[in-house]
Amino acid sequence: MADTISSLLAPASVALVGASDDATRIGGRPLKYLREAGFGGAVYPVNPKRSRVQGLKAYADIASLPEVPETAILALPASATLAAVEACGDAGVASATVFSAGFAEVGEEGRKLQQRIVDTARDAGMRLLGPNCLGVFNPSAQYYGTFSVILDGTLMKPGSVGVVSQSGAYGAHLAHLARARGMGISKWITTGNESDIDVAEALHWMVDDPDTNVIMAYAEGVKDRDLFVDALEQARTKRKAVVFMKTGRSSVGAEAAASHTAALAGSDDVFDAVLRQFGAYRAETTAQQIDVTYACASGRFPQDNKLGIFTMSGGFGIQLADDAEAVGLDVAPMPDDAQEELLAALPYSSPRNPVDATAQAVSQMELLTQSVNLIMQRGGYDMFAAILGIGPASPTFSSKLREALMAAVPEKDDLVRGLTMSAPVEAVRDYEKDGFLVFEDGTALAKAFGALAGFGRAFDRPASEREALWMEPLDLPTGPVSEAGAKAILSKAGIAFPEERLVKTGAEAAQAARDFGTPVVMKICSPEILHKTEVGGVAVNLLADDVEDRADEMFAAVARAAPDATIEGLLIAPMVGDGVETIVGVSRDPVLGPIVMFGLGGVFVEVLKDVTFRAAPFDVDEAHRMIREIRGFPLLEGVRGAKRADIDALARLLSDLSRFAYAHREAVKGVDLNPVRVMPEGEGVIALDALIEFGGDGA
Amino acid sequence: MADTISSLLAPASVALVGASDDATRIGGRPLKYLREAGFGGAVYPVNPKRSRVQGLKAYADIASLPEVPETAILALPASATLAAVEACGDAGVASATVFSAGFAEVGEEGRKLQQRIVDTARDAGMRLLGPNCLGVFNPSAQYYGTFSVILDGTLMKPGSVGVVSQSGAYGAHLAHLARARGMGISKWITTGNESDIDVAEALHWMVDDPDTNVIMAYAEGVKDRDLFVDALEQARTKRKAVVFMKTGRSSVGAEAAASHTAALAGSDDVFDAVLRQFGAYRAETTAQQIDVTYACASGRFPQDNKLGIFTMSGGFGIQLADDAEAVGLDVAPMPDDAQEELLAALPYSSPRNPVDATAQAVSQMELLTQSVNLIMQRGGYDMFAAILGIGPASPTFSSKLREALMAAVPEKDDLVRGLTMSAPVEAVRDYEKDGFLVFEDGTALAKAFGALAGFGRAFDRPASEREALWMEPLDLPTGPVSEAGAKAILSKAGIAFPEERLVKTGAEAAQAARDFGTPVVMKICSPEILHKTEVGGVAVNLLADDVEDRADEMFAAVARAAPDATIEGLLIAPMVGDGVETIVGVSRDPVLGPIVMFGLGGVFVEVLKDVTFRAAPFDVDEAHRMIREIRGFPLLEGVRGAKRADIDALARLLSDLSRFAYAHREAVKGVDLNPVRVMPEGEGVIALDALIEFGGDGA
Repeated sequence: MADTISSLLAPASVALVGASDDATRIGGRPLKYLREAGFGGAVYPVNPKRSRVQGLKAYADIASLPEVPETAILALPASATLAAVEACGDAGVASATVFSAGFAEVGEEGRKLQQRIVDTARDAGMRLLGPNCLGVFNPSAQYYGTFSVILDGTLMKPGSVGVVSQSGAYGAHLAHLARARGMGISKWITTGNESDIDVAEALHWMVDDPDTNVIMAYAEGVKDRDLFVDALEQARTKRKAVVFMKTGRSSVGAEAAASHTAALAGSDDVFDAVLRQFGAYRAETTAQQIDVTYACASGRFPQDNKLGIFTMSGGFGIQLADDAEAVGLDVAPMPDDAQEELLAALPYSSPRNPVDATAQAVSQMELLTQSVNLIMQRGGYDMFAAILGIGPASPTFSSKLREALMAAVPEKDDLVRGLTMSAPVEAVRDYEKDGFLVFEDGTALAKAFGALAGFGRAFDRPASEREALWMEPLDLPTGPVSEAGAKAILSKAGIAFPEERLVKTGAEAAQAARDFGTPVVMKICSPEILHKTEVGGVAVNLLADDVEDRADEMFAAVARAAPDATIEGLLIAPMVGDGVETIVGVSRDPVLGPIVMFGLGGVFVEVLKDVTFRAAPFDVDEAHRMIREIRGFPLLEGVRGAKRADIDALARLLSDLSRFAYAHREAVKGVDLNPVRVMPEGEGVIALDALIEFGGDGA
Repeated sequence: MADTISSLLAPASVALVGASDDATRIGGRPLKYLREAGFGGAVYPVNPKRSRVQGLKAYADIASLPEVPETAILALPASATLAAVEACGDAGVASATVFSAGFAEVGEEGRKLQQRIVDTARDAGMRLLGPNCLGVFNPSAQYYGTFSVILDGTLMKPGSVGVVSQSGAYGAHLAHLARARGMGISKWITTGNESDIDVAEALHWMVDDPDTNVIMAYAEGVKDRDLFVDALEQARTKRKAVVFMKTGRSSVGAEAAASHTAALAGSDDVFDAVLRQFGAYRAETTAQQIDVTYACASGRFPQDNKLGIFTMSGGFGIQLADDAEAVGLDVAPMPDDAQEELLAALPYSSPRNPVDATAQAVSQMELLTQSVNLIMQRGGYDMFAAILGIGPASPTFSSKLREALMAAVPEKDDLVRGLTMSAPVEAVRDYEKDGFLVFEDGTALAKAFGALAGFGRAFDRPASEREALWMEPLDLPTGPVSEAGAKAILSKAGIAFPEERLVKTGAEAAQAARDFGTPVVMKICSPEILHKTEVGGVAVNLLADDVEDRADEMFAAVARAAPDATIEGLLIAPMVGDGVETIVGVSRDPVLGPIVMFGLGGVFVEVLKDVTFRAAPFDVDEAHRMIREIRGFPLLEGVRGAKRADIDALARLLSDLSRFAYAHREAVKGVDLNPVRVMPEGEGVIALDALIEFGGDGA
């Protein structure tokens, strides 16, 4: 797989089918760029109407080429594409890029045509990029298989940033912004309609690429869940940051995404949770995607989240402290002795953090050096930020400022170091050479540093042992099961349920209640009755003496309401009123497959939609992170003198259920454990009800 | 008041005390700027050591000047400032700006010195700006009373944007960014330590300034609440947008703010709510403050929130739709017939909204014109945005694009029109001349348009009739009152309480319970007992037969637990278990004075801190907006088949309480109505408990 994508990005030879002499046309641009870049491989223009194109010998068709090109670029109308794909396949070309639009994105006709070109390529063992894509480029190989206009005039410089984008226009925009920010690109891939190669596969390939250290990705959805999740997990273990822009989070956006590409949008909340789960960063804005990528490209990730701030203006310091705290950074105070030392040198300063040396440091730069050095050497911070404002915009002042700043940097340091300034690009590059990350404003710096801290944490997590999360699939029934049946199945997956008894008669029910010796709950048990309350099939808080009569009434009520249902009997269980009410479930996301959902019960789920998700399977540590994401989490820790709930047991339940969900992802469509009572610490969790829905179309 | 601030911003004559021949020094810069700008008034350098300063005749002191200058700028060390203020006061100068630091911000000594210069100025009837400030400027009057380095090389162009900033550095940064964005400045005021003139007063003056249409403000806190609130209300009724950056929202930030200036930080949540209440916009980032101001400077505010989007790239369209929905804009679909017309012209397009004309519109620009025209003429939108990407960066392409776009704009339109593009500043200015607002990316455009829609709504609200909200203060007791006493007071303010009876004996209690004929609640009634439960002073759900015994027990329990308390008796009331439990309160914010708080009871307030605030007094409409801000609002609308609660009655309660709170803001420190049960629609609200805390230090 990886090799065929390599043929797209670093081919020994390339045929450009539909080559144009006009360097501004789609069939002309790639040739122009390849020649300007000085691409070292063979380039074969294919155009039956010309003998030369842009000065190069042209060929009538693929079959006439002096060798089989490693890859082909098809710059042809949609209607001519199929024949060209056939010709490439016949010749044994390894891969082809299809620029043309007019396929699946325009409706049923186009979808069929697209399917035919994919089938043709597959039959010939050829990989396809596109159609409706902007192609690829690879600056270090001088290879430009794209017609993007952003290369007009300026090609890209090589670097460590990879770009994978479903949208060509967005991918081009990212490259354009990265270039303006001084970043170099390792590889750039746009996937368009994704008839064959999709963002997940391109991302996976990019993670393996040794030249790529950080990846900007854009997608409206993904198609291959396992590949996608594996790519994210590989990126994390290789300490490569993935900075993702996923669109379609609004209802209008999701609709537009669905009309725009063939990708299924899936649930945006689920996508969001999965990115978090696997340590990727989801950018809210394009500017943020660029800022975070820029910070990650330095390759320094902090061990912890402590930030020391230097300022010469109180107002800016406060603003940065606000922004830093908002993204979870710790603006911890300087140690007392360092504060005293600062105050001794500059009595007007605020030595705590932000360290405010006041405007006096502008005229007495040794104060700047001294303050910054104390923050760096003695503050115990993982990250450092200095607010320089418009100072660096003045050429004379800027060089003094740089010297004073660098005089403060210790010989050896592993701090993430940042600056905010408004200055011309040349001044910015100078400070960058000194090892500082430079941002236009504090908010951008804070968000980027927050992302770095998040990556640092994610990278340091041990690789989850996937094998340990595997469970041998159970031999499941194919038809519906009752509550008792669902509990029996889930019990085998390690999930504990309260003591209860399935009885056939009112007398047996009464005996069960007497044996339990507490008020009981009584529920009808039938594989066909999913909503027991609606048929009169639930009675709570029954005393033993009442049970027999109520049991007979329940049998009668259910027989009237659901005369055709198979009745397995009645489930009798002791009432459980304690604990924190939660809801746990499994569903199958159309894109991301088996998903575990968790939330608190009652108003939390009904009014506040306070739920979170994870892709199955996941371990207990991940379950702990999941539980802490809900807003109502403090309720589990105990509020108003309530005991802390058994969060460990809840985490085990979630992880166990995720393993079950993944092992049976093809057979099981959904699981509901509602409610699950989380008892006080040490007393476990009790799932009071269980429902399993079976159904095909799994991943 | 207004006139004296005018003397600071457009003086007929100005003395610069501490004038320096060195144009890079604090005492040299204002002179340099004034001369470069060609200020038409008289400028008097004061420097006893020189006969000429920067080519102008210098004077030994204020007393030697040929006339009394209208204003004075003091560029002197802190230690020399008091004498200069005295001299100005003696001479009858109307106002003075103090640049120097070293006052209240550096501790007790400085605070005392600052107080002395303020007292001196007040005695002489002179107003003070600063100390520790960067001064003012007024480009249309060519007046620059500042030493800000951002004016080095380029002065400001006049315009409609006013800047009011507590922080000089931040204010300068805003001016710098506004200039880079092509905006002109009307007036610029930095207030520094605010010994006399504060942000609220400067803001008020700016709202009255006929040259100013939109105001950027920065503060860590405000001192004069009534002036501040009045300034915001004036701005709203004059349709002038106030775009506010308030820092100190984090704990570290608030600490730093307190150490940085003398301003009290107050509660950030309250400040936030008050800005919303009075229709100001709170920017989260500096970039956003600039973007929103830029959009407001056009003077077009939409009537409603409908946005039509044109794109030639699906991905960008989706992203903008997401961003627009996130800020509450309505990306409503095009009318069906317009969609059909679009599809007929361009079968591959997505005609819904975003309207995606695909890359084909790049080569066939008449498609762009047709699509955009349809959106503008037939979409029924208030706002329009087109995504142009990097197209306008190409000079040849850009002019064609501009023509095609302008050909689509109807003769007369009142649409707010925006574009996103990456292009050189000259190209941006061209599109701006055509009446488009230009943003670098869609997120910035969406946030700015969202802000415009918010301003539009706020501006269209009728001026709240302050007089109608006034209530004649009641004759309140000075000492503590019991629950019954509190209810009696609040009843006079129009707040309804449930039927209840204050009884003295167990027998009377039993009689009351029999009369009510339902289970009752019984509470001890004493001005000294605030927490009744803790002393055994509450019993709920009592049946008439039990009441007498339980009453005697309660008297005994309370006598043991609080032997010194004055016992007024027992309050007997019918149990009310229905309705949605809410909490309503009044507190006194250290900065913003009497504040009404509202939230849902239970986990909403305890776990989620789901509460909101308003400055008192406010009307019923404002109360309705307040109620809708809490996350748990759907609970009041009825969930899971519950009836809609009586939101109108709740709004009346909140407004009534706000009027009480404002009328008694000096005497009343706090009010707690907890719980307030909001009954089903038409059945009102029932405040079950009431507590009033009296205490001085009011506003």
